[in-house]
Amino acid sequence: MSAPNAFYAQSGGVTAVINASAAGVIEESRKNPERIGKVFAGKNGILGALNEELYDTSVESAADIAALKHTPGGAFGSCRYKLKSLEDNRAEYERLIEVFKAHDIGYFFYNGGNDSADTCLKVSRIAEKMDYPLQAIHVPKTVDNDLPITDNCPGFGSVAKYVAVSTLEAAADVKSMAATSTKVFIIEVMGRHAGWIAAAGGLADPDIILFPEIPFNKAKFLDAVDSAVKTKGYCIVVASEGTQDAEGNFLAESETVDAFGHKQLGGVAPTIAGMVQNELGYKYHWAVADYLQRSARHLSSQIDLDQAYAVGTEAVKYAVAGHNAVMPAIIRDKGEIYSWHLEMAPLNKIANVEKFLPREYIREDGYGISEAGRRYLQPLIEGEAFQPYKYGLPVHAKLKRQLVSKKLG
Amino acid sequence: MSAPNAFYAQSGGVTAVINASAAGVIEESRKNPERIGKVFAGKNGILGALNEELYDTSVESAADIAALKHTPGGAFGSCRYKLKSLEDNRAEYERLIEVFKAHDIGYFFYNGGNDSADTCLKVSRIAEKMDYPLQAIHVPKTVDNDLPITDNCPGFGSVAKYVAVSTLEAAADVKSMAATSTKVFIIEVMGRHAGWIAAAGGLADPDIILFPEIPFNKAKFLDAVDSAVKTKGYCIVVASEGTQDAEGNFLAESETVDAFGHKQLGGVAPTIAGMVQNELGYKYHWAVADYLQRSARHLSSQIDLDQAYAVGTEAVKYAVAGHNAVMPAIIRDKGEIYSWHLEMAPLNKIANVEKFLPREYIREDGYGISEAGRRYLQPLIEGEAFQPYKYGLPVHAKLKRQLVSKKLG
Repeated sequence: MSAPNAFYAQSGGVTAVINASAAGVIEESRKNPERIGKVFAGKNGILGALNEELYDTSVESAADIAALKHTPGGAFGSCRYKLKSLEDNRAEYERLIEVFKAHDIGYFFYNGGNDSADTCLKVSRIAEKMDYPLQAIHVPKTVDNDLPITDNCPGFGSVAKYVAVSTLEAAADVKSMAATSTKVFIIEVMGRHAGWIAAAGGLADPDIILFPEIPFNKAKFLDAVDSAVKTKGYCIVVASEGTQDAEGNFLAESETVDAFGHKQLGGVAPTIAGMVQNELGYKYHWAVADYLQRSARHLSSQIDLDQAYAVGTEAVKYAVAGHNAVMPAIIRDKGEIYSWHLEMAPLNKIANVEKFLPREYIREDGYGISEAGRRYLQPLIEGEAFQPYKYGLPVHAKLKRQLVSKKLG
Repeated sequence: MSAPNAFYAQSGGVTAVINASAAGVIEESRKNPERIGKVFAGKNGILGALNEELYDTSVESAADIAALKHTPGGAFGSCRYKLKSLEDNRAEYERLIEVFKAHDIGYFFYNGGNDSADTCLKVSRIAEKMDYPLQAIHVPKTVDNDLPITDNCPGFGSVAKYVAVSTLEAAADVKSMAATSTKVFIIEVMGRHAGWIAAAGGLADPDIILFPEIPFNKAKFLDAVDSAVKTKGYCIVVASEGTQDAEGNFLAESETVDAFGHKQLGGVAPTIAGMVQNELGYKYHWAVADYLQRSARHLSSQIDLDQAYAVGTEAVKYAVAGHNAVMPAIIRDKGEIYSWHLEMAPLNKIANVEKFLPREYIREDGYGISEAGRRYLQPLIEGEAFQPYKYGLPVHAKLKRQLVSKKLG
């Protein structure tokens, strides 16, 4: 009897290094042919399982799988699709198990954040209830950095590096223009619910960071901008997209309408730039990094890449060792010099638990990071994960993406 | 008698590699001590000369000057300050010559774009009229890529690489999310008057490029977006900040007001995103690269860096050879494989002449680049000019920036 196959799926917002985890899962599985048959990857994540659209990764060359380590986005497609509760949609879970059974899938590797940790746990439970032999292992990934137990989440370090480097570079630009031109620069970064990414901007020593955790106070903010401009000639602001006032209203949702009466799409950066212009009159520039920050594989941190790959291989090792409903968590070792290792964490302690940015990582005045914050963040952006280029552009994996023949209706 | 000193100034919007030109000027000058004394750099560009605020670059170490090659922004400060015509403000020109005389300045290296080429020429003429021995050499720099004679302008290649790489990476992200989430992604890039930078996005094969040169037609644009989404599942749009309608109205200036009645600061990307949402209902994301694109030294093209350095050294060679009112122009050699050399161009053929993006570089439908455009652009993003990092962040030059004692009032 041949070894059972594995199913791997990418879930939620992708990262610059999620495909490194895919490479880890596939390469480690290939090393264990006696335990793991083929690795199938879901076309567009878990939807691929529900639709019985499975990519056969065994047709991909070793070189193409290795190239995943320098390919941003989700190579097999991801999805924003949360399985409902078992009670609400038992049929969907049963369909999943049916597809797994049809394709002799004994391992489920789910590569995602908080929601998918929950799904992974549910799938493990329904399989057990249905007496179907399945090991469900969660592979952590999220730029939001909000999974518990793990010290940090693969994907976050690269966004952190992107934001810190971009802020540093833009600040050099603004500094040289400020005498006669731009005096205030605002860079808007991701993180609607937590200020992890905004905090990373702190590594570039901007003048002001706006965190979702600190209620936005317009007068105090404008004072801080004015003071920076008057003291040093310019002001650099890193603003989280989740910046909100004391009542919890997002700044990006301030109601604006265009000439046709259409609701205008905000953005924190232009909203703040408007305040600076109207109240202080300083010339400003603003940038919204949006997807650029989470797809910038060209600027990934080596630590992040290493960890993303390692959680992929480790997940397979857990599977081979017979574990179920677990996740490899990154544990920071004690000591002055940063080092880390992986430990197995049970999914029931991860699903539906969110890790927030600790207040002690934020400077007392609420506009910067503390030394504790810096100590946490700095190691995560270490190392430059350079990648191959051709004709001046990054080389990405070119997969065959060959679907397995369907066996079900 | 000691050799006359040189004055170097940075002008206008800075680039990721303008300091490489500074390094070229300073290093080449140091090789010619019998002809050039000290190199003074203007604090905030030409303002430094008018205010008699001159940095003495001779106190900077060779290592720090070399580090300018990987330092974005303008290391000595730049300015947006256009000298008026000789008739309107003869006093200002006379002040300039007075400062040059007081500090024994015999060479004027002006590092800028169109306006500064014009200023450089005027300074050369007034010196002649006032019988003051001065050689004025223009050192080309502009991300706008709009100087004539030269095949391209230092600074442009790096922005081009940034925009092409960022578009390629974001497209990989969107492609993987499109099944259940974001279907339209818009990246707004610089170039208010010409589509050179937007064209560079074409190297990443986006679905639609919006050029300032092609009047924006909303219905046609929305059709193209819809068609891309229906055909391939998603649509990537590179939009120039200069996108305008047939009447010349900039899309970014569509009138919008916020809740307080303040004029809202637009941006082409959010404006277009609003159209996509209102008319097609597709989920979108948008990014505005703004200063990130022109300060991204971490992603500079090696060709651009080489050329920026070379125009600096070449300018000094022209000065040493006794030339005046000239500029080193980059000439593309004939042949399949890209190569280039520098030739001396007279400033009177450069000042006040703008080079536009040729229509034949734009695809016939107006939404992409042609093969001719690709042939022009591709070599300019070749090569990765990697730079040193420390603690995960780029290392920039730390200059002493020591001002020369004033001799005038």
